[in-house]
Amino acid sequence: MTHGLFVSFEGIDGSGKSTQARMLHDHLASEGHEAILTREPGGSPGAEEIRALVLNGAPDRWSPETELLLFTAARRDHLERTVRPALEAGRTVICDRFADSTRMYQGLRGPGLRASVDALHDLMIAQEPDLTILIDIDAETGLARAIERGGEGRFEAFGGEMQQRMRDGFLALAKEFAGRFAVIDGARAPDAVAADVRAAVMARLGAA
Amino acid sequence: MTHGLFVSFEGIDGSGKSTQARMLHDHLASEGHEAILTREPGGSPGAEEIRALVLNGAPDRWSPETELLLFTAARRDHLERTVRPALEAGRTVICDRFADSTRMYQGLRGPGLRASVDALHDLMIAQEPDLTILIDIDAETGLARAIERGGEGRFEAFGGEMQQRMRDGFLALAKEFAGRFAVIDGARAPDAVAADVRAAVMARLGAA
Ligand SMILES: Nc1ncnc2c1ncn2[C@@H]1O[C@H](COP(=O)(O)OP(=O)(O)OP(=O)(O)O)[C@@H](O)[C@H]1O
Ligand SMILES: Nc1ncnc2c1ncn2[C@@H]1O[C@H](COP(=O)(O)OP(=O)(O)OP(=O)(O)O)[C@@H](O)[C@H]1O
Ligand SMILES: [Mg+2]
Ligand SMILES: [Mg+2]
Repeated sequence: MTHGLFVSFEGIDGSGKSTQARMLHDHLASEGHEAILTREPGGSPGAEEIRALVLNGAPDRWSPETELLLFTAARRDHLERTVRPALEAGRTVICDRFADSTRMYQGLRGPGLRASVDALHDLMIAQEPDLTILIDIDAETGLARAIERGGEGRFEAFGGEMQQRMRDGFLALAKEFAGRFAVIDGARAPDAVAADVRAAVMARLGAA
Repeated sequence: MTHGLFVSFEGIDGSGKSTQARMLHDHLASEGHEAILTREPGGSPGAEEIRALVLNGAPDRWSPETELLLFTAARRDHLERTVRPALEAGRTVICDRFADSTRMYQGLRGPGLRASVDALHDLMIAQEPDLTILIDIDAETGLARAIERGGEGRFEAFGGEMQQRMRDGFLALAKEFAGRFAVIDGARAPDAVAADVRAAVMARLGAA
């Protein structure tokens, strides 16, 4: 049995990651392909508890460094208990956010923090998706969608300028890790975006 | 204003760390010396929440690596919110367990884990106590005391052989970090142990 394909979705708030991850999962399932849909932070019982600890409460409840350690703990648990077992069973794993979100969100929280993010990732995670789909959208559209939908949390409080920096940051990551990134224009109807997502995944599944 | 002295207590379960930490704190306070008593895991509101997450539940709830990340997150929070502010205000900080406990307990949980413990410490903590008091006691006495007292948790379930390995491991750490360790015979009456603890602390406070 071959190893499953590990696909992550990234992009700014409201870009459509969760929508597209779900559409991809439903499509693959409808074709009889074994796939699981999971998310970060969270995705395993322990990691969901850590998620709740990190995302609830006042914005200054955790320092950037403590938050980074908690997210890394959640990722380690998620990898060990959900992602790797599924990949080893040959399933496609569709993950709504993964380590690139940490590179962006924690990496932007303080000077020098991106270096800590990378060192911690190399030490305790050391796994990348086979394919990362960046749903790219302009900051205003993303923010408008996220506000309309209503959200969990404090990250969205950063505002439009932050969203713009995030968008630029994700595009920079797509260049840094060009081998595994596919950048897809998210400012279209969901079905049009989903068709491009499917094409990117099929290209990898064919190649795998 | 000078920087406060950072004193940690280490030793196997039931060796008398908490008893001696409290006695030292009470003694210093009675002499009008500004000191705080704290503990790990925990010691700050956030770290106490992480402590509860780690120590409750089934023994296999967290892998050694996830547990290590959670303890490191708790230590980072404790350092930032409790230990460093007190040291910077010139107070003596008395801490019931610190990073040496992680070196021992997590370091023994798997092959190669001590290397991860050290790398994570260098990356995210990078602080040692000025003085570490190892309350040394034989495994049987420690276990008997711990069982008599009743305990929080799952670490004590490891049994006598594990306690013996822990004792040997703490003594090895005292050699590895000889400059900051004071090894004190804990198999005596509390007052006799406390007198030696005070002497070790006074030697450092005088030198500071
Ligand atoms: N292509 C699209 N066109 C218009 N609206 C969309 C599109 N995709 C998603 N939406 C809507 O925008 C909102 C945000 O979408 P979604 O939750 O999928 O984004 P997200 O990237 O997961 O956001 P977050 O980062 O906050 O989790 C939802 O209300 C969703 O229905
Ligand atoms: N010197 C001593 N002689 C006899 N009993 C002691 C002595 N010191 C402590 N005890 C008792 O032994 C028990 C364990 O002591 P204590 O809680 O201080 O140990 P500890 O090292 O903090 O244990 P743990 O690692 O489980 O937190 C307590 O009931 C305490 O009253
Ligand atoms: Mg989402
Ligand atoms: Mg104790």
